[in-house]
Amino acid sequence: MFNAVLIGITTDEVIYENYQSIFIFLDVLILSIFTIEIILKLVVYRHEFFKEGWNIFDFVIVFGSLVLYNTHFVGVLRILRVLRVLRTISIVPSLKRLTNSLFLAIPAIGSVTILMGIIFYVYAIIGTSFFGDISPEYFGDVDLSVLTLFQVFTLESWASGVFRPIFAEVTWSWLYFVSFIVVSTFIILNLIVGEIVNNAQQLSEHARQESEDMQRVMNDLDELKQMIRKQDHQHNKSNKTG
Amino acid sequence: MFNAVLIGITTDEVIYENYQSIFIFLDVLILSIFTIEIILKLVVYRHEFFKEGWNIFDFVIVFGSLVLYNTHFVGVLRILRVLRVLRTISIVPSLKRLTNSLFLAIPAIGSVTILMGIIFYVYAIIGTSFFGDISPEYFGDVDLSVLTLFQVFTLESWASGVFRPIFAEVTWSWLYFVSFIVVSTFIILNLIVGEIVNNAQQLSEHARQESEDMQRVMNDLDELKQMIRKQDHQHNKSNKTG
Amino acid sequence: MFNAVLIGITTDEVIYENYQSIFIFLDVLILSIFTIEIILKLVVYRHEFFKEGWNIFDFVIVFGSLVLYNTHFVGVLRILRVLRVLRTISIVPSLKRLTNSLFLAIPAIGSVTILMGIIFYVYAIIGTSFFGDISPEYFGDVDLSVLTLFQVFTLESWASGVFRPIFAEVTWSWLYFVSFIVVSTFIILNLIVGEIVNNAQQLSEHARQESEDMQRVMNDLDELKQMIRKQDHQHNKSNKTG
Amino acid sequence: MFNAVLIGITTDEVIYENYQSIFIFLDVLILSIFTIEIILKLVVYRHEFFKEGWNIFDFVIVFGSLVLYNTHFVGVLRILRVLRVLRTISIVPSLKRLTNSLFLAIPAIGSVTILMGIIFYVYAIIGTSFFGDISPEYFGDVDLSVLTLFQVFTLESWASGVFRPIFAEVTWSWLYFVSFIVVSTFIILNLIVGEIVNNAQQLSEHARQESEDMQRVMNDLDELKQMIRKQDHQHNKSNKTG
Repeated sequence: MFNAVLIGITTDEVIYENYQSIFIFLDVLILSIFTIEIILKLVVYRHEFFKEGWNIFDFVIVFGSLVLYNTHFVGVLRILRVLRVLRTISIVPSLKRLTNSLFLAIPAIGSVTILMGIIFYVYAIIGTSFFGDISPEYFGDVDLSVLTLFQVFTLESWASGVFRPIFAEVTWSWLYFVSFIVVSTFIILNLIVGEIVNNAQQLSEHARQESEDMQRVMNDLDELKQMIRKQDHQHNKSNKTG
Repeated sequence: MFNAVLIGITTDEVIYENYQSIFIFLDVLILSIFTIEIILKLVVYRHEFFKEGWNIFDFVIVFGSLVLYNTHFVGVLRILRVLRVLRTISIVPSLKRLTNSLFLAIPAIGSVTILMGIIFYVYAIIGTSFFGDISPEYFGDVDLSVLTLFQVFTLESWASGVFRPIFAEVTWSWLYFVSFIVVSTFIILNLIVGEIVNNAQQLSEHARQESEDMQRVMNDLDELKQMIRKQDHQHNKSNKTG
Repeated sequence: MFNAVLIGITTDEVIYENYQSIFIFLDVLILSIFTIEIILKLVVYRHEFFKEGWNIFDFVIVFGSLVLYNTHFVGVLRILRVLRVLRTISIVPSLKRLTNSLFLAIPAIGSVTILMGIIFYVYAIIGTSFFGDISPEYFGDVDLSVLTLFQVFTLESWASGVFRPIFAEVTWSWLYFVSFIVVSTFIILNLIVGEIVNNAQQLSEHARQESEDMQRVMNDLDELKQMIRKQDHQHNKSNKTG
Repeated sequence: MFNAVLIGITTDEVIYENYQSIFIFLDVLILSIFTIEIILKLVVYRHEFFKEGWNIFDFVIVFGSLVLYNTHFVGVLRILRVLRVLRTISIVPSLKRLTNSLFLAIPAIGSVTILMGIIFYVYAIIGTSFFGDISPEYFGDVDLSVLTLFQVFTLESWASGVFRPIFAEVTWSWLYFVSFIVVSTFIILNLIVGEIVNNAQQLSEHARQESEDMQRVMNDLDELKQMIRKQDHQHNKSNKTG
């Protein structure tokens, strides 16, 4: 119930970014309200509290803030404070529904993510071995290479920034970059097309079931015809004998 | 009726951009024609005039031009003059239909826009706190950060321009940028897939209704069979008793 | 029949790019073969020749080459020579089918193109009036502005190249660029979603027709039941009277 | 069975990248295990071994590594070593299924690829002839032009890097670049829309078959009605004559 008020205060955060004096008081206030709210929820729901993802998220943010308060992990604390804004999502129903549907879409992209991981890894190893000396900024080690490949994947400055300087020294590097872009884009496009077609296939299964119903209707009609024919036959016979 | 002529004059605007002398005369002429048209429409339709969005749009543009005429808000006046070209849309039926369908698509993206707003806001706060000193041009204040995040969202120079200089000083910044790109792109892709699948679901509902009809057909057939069986039975009985 | 040989020679064009001596001879040879082919086709099909788009395309390329031969329009001639490669499309059936289907998709995007044209035009006028002096390279005149807006539309260097320098002088310019990107991307995305959904709606119409058939089946069954009931009733009556 | 262990060792490759001493031993070990595995498979399956694509892939990688071992083709050998990581895909079932479905999607894009090839080729020839002298870095020869067109196709620095410097000298070059971007993007978008709609058409065919079944049901019902009417008629006649 009193969550709505909390959202109001939380979204004000932009304003008091500038007022350092009131900032600390409000922060303590919000944190204590959140702590009380979570304690109350824990008392009421007990073990079932941790069954929902949103509750775990709330607990980690509030508990993390409490533990790190007055320590020197100011950076983490600041991030936790900002993440409290995300609680708004769990309070507005339409946003909660939307976010839940987004989380449900993640398993569907699971094997694609693993495949992309393997491709990134293979290309990162090749990139590091061959371009590591030419362009240490982009392919210095495997981690840097993975980051650079992510940049190439988003097509950002892949040619002007990354590829052209390497191309000037290693001629076959065009094959490396072009094949990576074609393969990774092809996989992502297929993932999207697949997602859409998947839902179409669910429709198709619905249609197949209907087709079976139709078969039953046709069998019923055949049976009916035979029954009437038999009746007809018997009637004629009874008329003749009558 | 005389709107078609107006479009002709309005689209000529490019030509008389260069002829300053005729420019003012034509501008006054068009504005007075538009004013008369709106006054006539107001007299005819009265309160119903403001029920359609296009009329309100016309009214604001013409009324705004009249009020600001001969004031020093030359900039706003110039924009209003150009926006009159958009009236063409409300006159050509196919364009009006298209624009109306685009406006109808906006509510569907409502909750996604709010979610994106929250994500932009959270990332902007984090970006301003941690990268504000390193790269004041991009993360100087929250407004600048939101603008920079929009640039990163469109993938424009996100690495070469924004990320690489920050990455040179803050190692964990790759997590900030990569997670932002993955999350925001994932949400937008899901919005598009969802839009398409939504319409597929409307088809699915149609199919479900049909499935119920099929059920009724099968029940009717069962009833029919029982009726004929009963008839058959009675007939036999009457034959025996006859 | 002898088209297949022509393709072979035509695709060899890459090789003889380097051999200037054989180049002229082969060019004359291909051109004369194409001329003879078109003359033969003209004799056989006469007026029906110009009914198919591909024939008109062939005619313009070959006739244009003949007219411009030995004139000083070397540039146009060179382009015409390269365009002959496109004839390959009209010979391979699967490519011809694909290209035809692409041309059929153009009318569907007609009104979207007009709408985009109006939006480009309005933004170009505003851009030229307000940013013309600050960044003459990008917004010097309306033509340059339209070109720059196309670049912004493709999201290429829109921030780093075009927007940031203007933003440094005109604060509200972010509204101009962000609104243009959001509006134009939104229209194109809706066009794509609409194309897909359109085909889904054709399926939906199919389902609606089926729904009407189902209605007729249910009416037929009701009629049947009433007929059997009537028969039943009459039978009972005849039995009683019998 | 012992493949799972191999994956473990193979993915460790990152770690021993740094330990040159153990590196050679492990490499020889993995290679010999892989060789034994393939020899065993060859003995068991014989000719059927080469019928599956994955087996051929394994064979080429292992056989290639053996042949090139201790030669000076260190580069190719290193790539082959990294490609062994791709074997993981053939071992995890869900990844194998995903990759197979991706390979099945390739024929569908066959004619689009050929069409894109022709368009790239025609634009590359025109680009080389006209912009070769102005910008030898991008349009120096046909190969470079194709590479540059691929960069333009991905929209990366197409304006800021490639187009603007050429536009400064050749005014009509905007037509070259804008038409290339519009045509190539239009083709790819149509390919994606087509892929989705294709699967919708399969659903449509399902619906058409159902429509025929419905027709048969309606014919059966008409037949039934006539049979009952005839029975009715006969009954009345028999009652009159009775």
